[in-house]
Amino acid sequence: MIYINGDYVSEKDAVVSIFDRGFLMADAVYEVTAVLDGKMVGFDGHWARLQRSLGELHLACPLTRTELLAIHRELIARNNLTHGGVYVQITRGNPGDRDYIIADMAPTIVLFTQDSPDPINDSDADKGWRVMTAPDLRWRRRDIKSVQLLYPSLVKTEAARQGFDDAWLIEDGAITEGTSNNAYIIKDGVIITRELSHDILHGVTRANLLAYAAERQMKVEIRPFTLTEAKDADEAFVTSASAYVMPVVSIDGHAIGDGKPGSHALNLRKIFIEESIKAAL
Amino acid sequence: MIYINGDYVSEKDAVVSIFDRGFLMADAVYEVTAVLDGKMVGFDGHWARLQRSLGELHLACPLTRTELLAIHRELIARNNLTHGGVYVQITRGNPGDRDYIIADMAPTIVLFTQDSPDPINDSDADKGWRVMTAPDLRWRRRDIKSVQLLYPSLVKTEAARQGFDDAWLIEDGAITEGTSNNAYIIKDGVIITRELSHDILHGVTRANLLAYAAERQMKVEIRPFTLTEAKDADEAFVTSASAYVMPVVSIDGHAIGDGKPGSHALNLRKIFIEESIKAAL
Repeated sequence: MIYINGDYVSEKDAVVSIFDRGFLMADAVYEVTAVLDGKMVGFDGHWARLQRSLGELHLACPLTRTELLAIHRELIARNNLTHGGVYVQITRGNPGDRDYIIADMAPTIVLFTQDSPDPINDSDADKGWRVMTAPDLRWRRRDIKSVQLLYPSLVKTEAARQGFDDAWLIEDGAITEGTSNNAYIIKDGVIITRELSHDILHGVTRANLLAYAAERQMKVEIRPFTLTEAKDADEAFVTSASAYVMPVVSIDGHAIGDGKPGSHALNLRKIFIEESIKAAL
Repeated sequence: MIYINGDYVSEKDAVVSIFDRGFLMADAVYEVTAVLDGKMVGFDGHWARLQRSLGELHLACPLTRTELLAIHRELIARNNLTHGGVYVQITRGNPGDRDYIIADMAPTIVLFTQDSPDPINDSDADKGWRVMTAPDLRWRRRDIKSVQLLYPSLVKTEAARQGFDDAWLIEDGAITEGTSNNAYIIKDGVIITRELSHDILHGVTRANLLAYAAERQMKVEIRPFTLTEAKDADEAFVTSASAYVMPVVSIDGHAIGDGKPGSHALNLRKIFIEESIKAAL
């Protein structure tokens, strides 16, 4: 079942007008909230980021937190979701015609669920991801979680075609992030990840993981790192709502450390999942 | 009437699945072909650019030139269009779920028409456009005519809110282009406009206008120009399928020349419209 503008409908009835600005102009933002054992991970982080993205687009949220939470729960229940995610997209709406200039209109809101493997027994995490690199050609407001995902999607597809699991994007000599995840390296026990700015997504998983690491007195350096540094690192990993904490074992075919998922990364994954289960809504 | 995937339907029946990649990931390209006296301007230029955009996305065109031309003509006839444009959008299609990795699927194709004033008596051209400037934060493949129009749309809306007609975008100190048009200045009788690259749209109107100017021995310099140069120019104008050749009379409130539409720009507009009527299909 899909939620669309107040109704729960079957997939075939989940349609929008071709004049919806989400379809004609990518005038839409989204969130994906992970579901673990039927409960939501980081819902309030996603809610806060959704409000931020909408605000940057001068778009009012059509629902309260309580209403959106209830729809998430209803969809999880109706679709019997154990592990996976709930996707929510809010578009500017349908003005009935196509125009660059934005008029007042009612937003379109769509939610659906997706299954994924149990993250505690995820074979991907045991193997780690092999990533390639690509120039970061995305727009310069990646902090706004818009649906302008054409480039990340083309890059991830090319990565898959070449036998990689994902790609890290490079701008001005430094790694920005993965196609749909934040990027980290570990050197001499220090976790290194780029600072928040307009250049990267403000990851909900990133924020929570860094808090869990701080509580455990782990050393963290918030700064950009280069591809050379990354190849020379002891470990590497990414975080996202769907991948949680995912070890990266090679970059452009160059093994990181011993080429296996690093012990710090696997420990961080374990910590993240344990804490997420505790905090899940 | 709207054309969608082989059918002519009313506006209310023109819908796409929420899983269409045009809606979820801006994985779609488009063209707008001007209609003048019921005939199409630059159809073959738009057809060629559509093929190029699709090719950059590794997307096969679902229609031949003859088929697409016939649909354009059918819509112009059914909608009694005299002056305006035909919009065509081709999306990757609906894979039935959301995934960054692109699988094989049938594309979605949508066409509709829009009215506009008779360009020969367009009061906008008599007044000229007042433009503001904004940083160019778009993705770095503006040569691909994708539907990732969120930023241009936000900027054009802000321009309108502030009483401007459009905005010129600036990157690395030079003007790239307008929100949906190519930008030009004229200094000492020389038409100056930026070279084609990944940084700007390869305008169909631009290509035709430069050919008409060359045939008339006008001097053209193909190079980037700065905001300072633009403010110091004798004239300025933009070109697009919907605005044809449109004089620009001020930038950020600074009058260009005497602050009225320039004689070269108005002459180029006249030439463009005359030649377009002759070449229209």
